[in-house]
Parts: sequence; C-alpha cells; structure tokens
Amino acid sequence: MTPDTGPARGFDTAEYRARTARAQALMAEQGLSALLLTTEPEVRYFSGYLTRFWESPTRPWFLIVPAAGDPVAVIPSIGAPLLARGWIRDIRTWRAPAPEDDGVTLLADTLRELAPGPVGVPMGHETHLRMPLADWQRLRDVPGVDLVPDGGILRRLRLIKSEAEIAKTAAACAVASRAFARVTEVMARGMTLDTVFRRFQMLCLEEGADWVPYLAGGAGPGGYADVISPAGPQALRAGDVLMLDTGLVRDGYFCDFDRNFSIGPPTAQVRNAHARLIEATQAGLAAARPGATAADVFHAMDRIVTDGAGGSDAGRLGHGLGMQLTEWPSLIPDDHTVLEPGMVLTLEPGLETGPGRIMVHEENIVLREHGADLLSDPASADIPVTGG
Amino acid sequence: MTPDTGPARGFDTAEYRARTARAQALMAEQGLSALLLTTEPEVRYFSGYLTRFWESPTRPWFLIVPAAGDPVAVIPSIGAPLLARGWIRDIRTWRAPAPEDDGVTLLADTLRELAPGPVGVPMGHETHLRMPLADWQRLRDVPGVDLVPDGGILRRLRLIKSEAEIAKTAAACAVASRAFARVTEVMARGMTLDTVFRRFQMLCLEEGADWVPYLAGGAGPGGYADVISPAGPQALRAGDVLMLDTGLVRDGYFCDFDRNFSIGPPTAQVRNAHARLIEATQAGLAAARPGATAADVFHAMDRIVTDGAGGSDAGRLGHGLGMQLTEWPSLIPDDHTVLEPGMVLTLEPGLETGPGRIMVHEENIVLREHGADLLSDPASADIPVTGG
Repeated sequence: MTPDTGPARGFDTAEYRARTARAQALMAEQGLSALLLTTEPEVRYFSGYLTRFWESPTRPWFLIVPAAGDPVAVIPSIGAPLLARGWIRDIRTWRAPAPEDDGVTLLADTLRELAPGPVGVPMGHETHLRMPLADWQRLRDVPGVDLVPDGGILRRLRLIKSEAEIAKTAAACAVASRAFARVTEVMARGMTLDTVFRRFQMLCLEEGADWVPYLAGGAGPGGYADVISPAGPQALRAGDVLMLDTGLVRDGYFCDFDRNFSIGPPTAQVRNAHARLIEATQAGLAAARPGATAADVFHAMDRIVTDGAGGSDAGRLGHGLGMQLTEWPSLIPDDHTVLEPGMVLTLEPGLETGPGRIMVHEENIVLREHGADLLSDPASADIPVTGG
Repeated sequence: MTPDTGPARGFDTAEYRARTARAQALMAEQGLSALLLTTEPEVRYFSGYLTRFWESPTRPWFLIVPAAGDPVAVIPSIGAPLLARGWIRDIRTWRAPAPEDDGVTLLADTLRELAPGPVGVPMGHETHLRMPLADWQRLRDVPGVDLVPDGGILRRLRLIKSEAEIAKTAAACAVASRAFARVTEVMARGMTLDTVFRRFQMLCLEEGADWVPYLAGGAGPGGYADVISPAGPQALRAGDVLMLDTGLVRDGYFCDFDRNFSIGPPTAQVRNAHARLIEATQAGLAAARPGATAADVFHAMDRIVTDGAGGSDAGRLGHGLGMQLTEWPSLIPDDHTVLEPGMVLTLEPGLETGPGRIMVHEENIVLREHGADLLSDPASADIPVTGG
C-alpha cells in the first residue's frame, strides 16, 4: 500500500467556526433565524460528521444552524459517540428507527426553542430533503415552526472552498493520478471490462482511496456508447477505446476525472479526437478565470468539440466538485455563475466519434486569483496506447 | 480474480412485468391512477436501470407507473441510451441540468396525460423524495396534478423478494463469505485499521463485488466504541477485537453482515460475548418464521443480549435487505410487520462488553414457508483468533 501522504485528517475547529460565521452572516442578511439541514454533505459541512452509515436510508439526521451560537444536532442515538468526537456539543438524540415519531417531535421542539423566526431549508437546484415527505409535512404543520427556502445560502457557502478543502480534493486527485499512472498493471487485451473495473477500484484503494463511490466508463471500437453504464463482460479488443472515470474519496472529498486508453494502435480518428479533447480542456482551463462565468468556460470548450453547436445530450462540459461527486455550478450555456477564487471544477468536454459513439475527457481544477490551476495530473494530447 | 459464479446479470422482462402488475393491483385497490417514483431503488425496481451515476446529485430522474400499461420514464437525456437497453419503451427526456426547469414541465405534462386521478408518491418511513423541494412544490401546484401518499405500495412490494432477487442477494452474500474466509490475508497485528479497511475492500472486489458501497467496523481492547465510524490510523494490538461489517453489491443487490476477530488470544469475556451473540443470532433465526412479527424476532434476540431490557442505542437488532443496505422492516419492539416467505432480513444482535465498548454480530437470512434459511456462511460460536 502507498503511504497516506495527504493532509492531516479532518479539519480544525476554526474551520467549522468560520463556516458557521459565514452562514450566520448570510442568514442575518435574509432574516433567517436558523438553517435546517438533512443531507450528508450539508450536515458534514458544519459538523465534520463523516461516516459511510448514510448508505442506510432508514434514519433521518438533522443539523440546525441557529442565527447565533454553535450548531445543534438532532440525530439518532447510534450516531452520538461519533459526532461527539467533533466540535458539536449540543447533541440531542432519539432511539431510531421509531416509525411513529422518528425524531419529528424532538426536531420541532428544538426548532421552537432555537428559531423564533423563519428557518431556511435548502430547496433549490441540486438539493434534496433527506427525510420522509410525510414527516416534512408534519413538521411544517407544527405551530411556531416556519420553514422557508434557504435563499441559496448553502450553495453560496459550498461554492467557494477553503484552502483546507482544496488540499483535500488535491489529495484525492493525487490518489487517482497515481492509480491512472499504473493502469497498465490492471488491464490487458482480452480482459473483460467488468474485471478491469474491479481491478482499477482495487488499484485506487491500494493508492490510498478510502473508498471508491464512483467508477464509470466504457469501451468500444473508436469510442463508447455512454459514460454511465455499468461494466459488462465484453472483452477488450484491439481498436477499442477504454475510458475509466473515477470519483474516489479521501477524507470525505472527491476527485472526478477520467482517462482514455487505446487498446492497441489507435486509428487516426481516435488520435485526433483525443487531441481535440485535450485542446478543448486547455481552452477551458484558459477561460476559467475569476470574473468569467460558468457559461464562458462551456463555450470555450464547446467551440472546439462541437464547433459551437451548444453542447450534447450529456448536458454539460463540467461542474463543481468537493464533498460530492458533482456540485454547482454547471458548465452549460444557461449557468451564469461568476467564477471566483476557491471554486473547484471539473472540465469535461466530450465529442461524437461516430453514430452512438463518444469520447469524453475530464480534468479537475481550482480557481485562483491569476486563473485556474490543475489538481489532476493532466493527460497529454497523445492517447496512451496499451494492451496491444 | 475469482470467476463470477452468481446468477446471470439483470432480470427477465417477465420479472418487471410481474412487479408492474402487482403494483397496479394495489393501485386499483387504493384508487390511484399512477405512481411517481424518484429514488434509485424505486426507479430500478420497475425499470432495471442500474448505474452508479446516481452518485451525482445534480439531475432528477422520474418513473411513472400508470394504472395500466408499462411504466414511462421522464429522465435526463444522458441516461436514455442505458435505460433503452432495458424493457422500458416510453422514455421522455430533457437535456439536464436545466436550472430554470429541470424536467418539471415535462413531468407535469406526462402526469396530466397518463394520470387523470391521484398520483401516489412514497412518503412514509425509510423513503425520500429525490428532487429539489422547490420543484416538488411547483409540481404540486400544477392544475390537474394530484400528488398523494402511495399508501405504502412500494414498501409492500419491496418487502417480499422474488426468487430472482433472493438469488442476487445470495450471490452478494457468497462474495462476502469468500472474502471473510480469506481475511487473515489482509490483516496482521501492527497493521493500522484504515489499511485493513482498504485491503478488505480490495479483497471483496477480488472475490467478485461490483463495488463496495459500505464498510464499517471498529477495533479495540475487548470491543469497539461504535459500528459506524470511519477507520483511523490506530494499529491493531494483541487483545483487540476487530469487527468488519460489509455491504457490498453484486448486480445491484447488497449483502450486509459482519465478522469479529480476536487479535491474539481472546479474554474469557470476549469469548463469552461472541458465543452469546451467536446464541442470540440462532434464537433470531429460530424465531423468524412466517406469521411471527419483526418484534418477535427482536425479543428472541434481546432476551439473550440484554436479558430482555428492550434494546440499546443502536435501536434495532436487524432489518430488511435487498436493493438497499437497509430496508423495512426493523427488528425493534414497535415494528409489528408480520413476516412472510420471501422476506430477506439481517439478524444483528449487539451487546455491551464494557463502558463504551460493544460487540455486534450479523447474519443474512431469507424467510421460507418452513422458517428462515441463512444466506451468509454462518460464523461459529468460537471467535476466530488471528494476527497473534
């Protein structure tokens, strides 16, 4: 196993206090008396609560950020020992699951105590409510509980990463870069794609991933049909383009980038397509500067991959990245989010190489005052050839 | 790599038709004109749509099961090629993400076309709505769209597994059983717990897991503090009890069971605790018969692990299992779900071994007419000793 060379695990309490203070400043502007949070990244953002136990959909978890003071947790008792290792001191628990009242009364009582006014809940694009809808409706009906949209506060906060967060994504990218550098060890002509997927996940773990929540890809002659299908038992053949796209996690932060490989010598078309994807990525990198918009970066890449046709069915050419595999903004014509230092993005141009055949390339970047820096070890214009 | 020896991938169309017909019979009883589904397992249950792309929270996905006829998908265009490989023929797409109208109008139009009456949406315990709350509210306000609770139809359907589903869980259990049988290859005294976690995940992949969404556990002298914490860098020492609890996936179905190991010779207390956990598991196995309730199985185990005190902060002693790591029912005093053939459950008794120290054991079972059969290779009463 490769030694774990990334930054120290977790964050200082100062980081959580700063996040809370920023939230409270925005809440004051909007007249909110609290935020109510229910999803894994929302709860973790303020509490540091990191566990794979969210994979179980059974129990709801709640974090309240009041207008002043530290966040308050209302959670199942099974989670209290782990949460108490962090900085949150006010942890109120019930023994879940409790089908008749799974924390709703405790949550309502806590909200009435802490939040005399409107309580902001993330409701916009790319957010979910992680509690049963029937319980949400019960909570909404409690007198004295006033649930309103959060006005995009969570989006605004999470769009701009701290230096400590950027270091975590960089460490995840470094793990994946090391795994991609060794990819020839886990693939060969004649090997089935599902075996390659398994072996590549093992390689990511060996290089230091804590877990591998996401691996997608494809393989086919001159390109692949899509980039979200599970791997099947088809064997890699000469002339195939293999793509592996990994979202692995180290210390709670994702990377998300891919690499293409030619099985045996590539055709001129594949070679050219790969070079064009790298050219588009470099154009995206150059366009990603503070003051430019997400749409500007889209168009910089789209000019190269579709001659400016305005995109494809994939719908976007990159996105935010951090505690989740994909975050705001989207690199699409309609997203006019202004880029700022501290944003972490993927650049993900794709192009058609034939009927029902595509190739996609992806790198990860961070916005700085001077422009964008790469977090992933960038691929060269020449598609790597292997397994020949 | 171990050859993939489980059942063939996917399901026959007949399986999806049977699921749809059962849903429609229940919908008729309740006067529903359609079901609207938004989460990964709900959509996959009727469509077979299997992809790790759900890891991205950006895009909503919708499946409508009308009162008669085949399900209709309303999904982002990026997913259409994969979904079209299955049996669903009516696939309506939009190019997502589209922040101004991310499928809501298309969904509303489709519902108005297909569902003249009430549309059932899962809203109860252990369900979520996977779309932004603001979009849900917009949808609810569309004239002619009448969204109501699904009356537990999805819960009812998914509680009882088909033989084809049971075979998939059995295959996932077989992968984990093989991995546990080789666990001494990936651990040793002095190795850090996070390294053991990484290496065990690699072993699960090598034995045939498609991916490993869940691995939890702990290690400590005479027991561990909880069962949901991430692994830290502490080295395994003589006298530690190590527990690994894996929810790996093969072909979209989970296993979920654990094993305990003593690093070096166990104390009498640890040996006795392990034997008592196995005794409790066997009592649960004997109690899990058609006609008994989830609560009955809880009490059969609780009598042994807490002398009938009624449970612990973990909140339950087992749960349903299938397309998700945890499903209904819960083995708790308040869950009076009557057990039926075809239910797949975990038995998960735990006990305190000291202040802030616990041990937990878990097996997976399927309900048959005659009682319960084990799906996991059962652990013996003697705690395995290793790394000594």
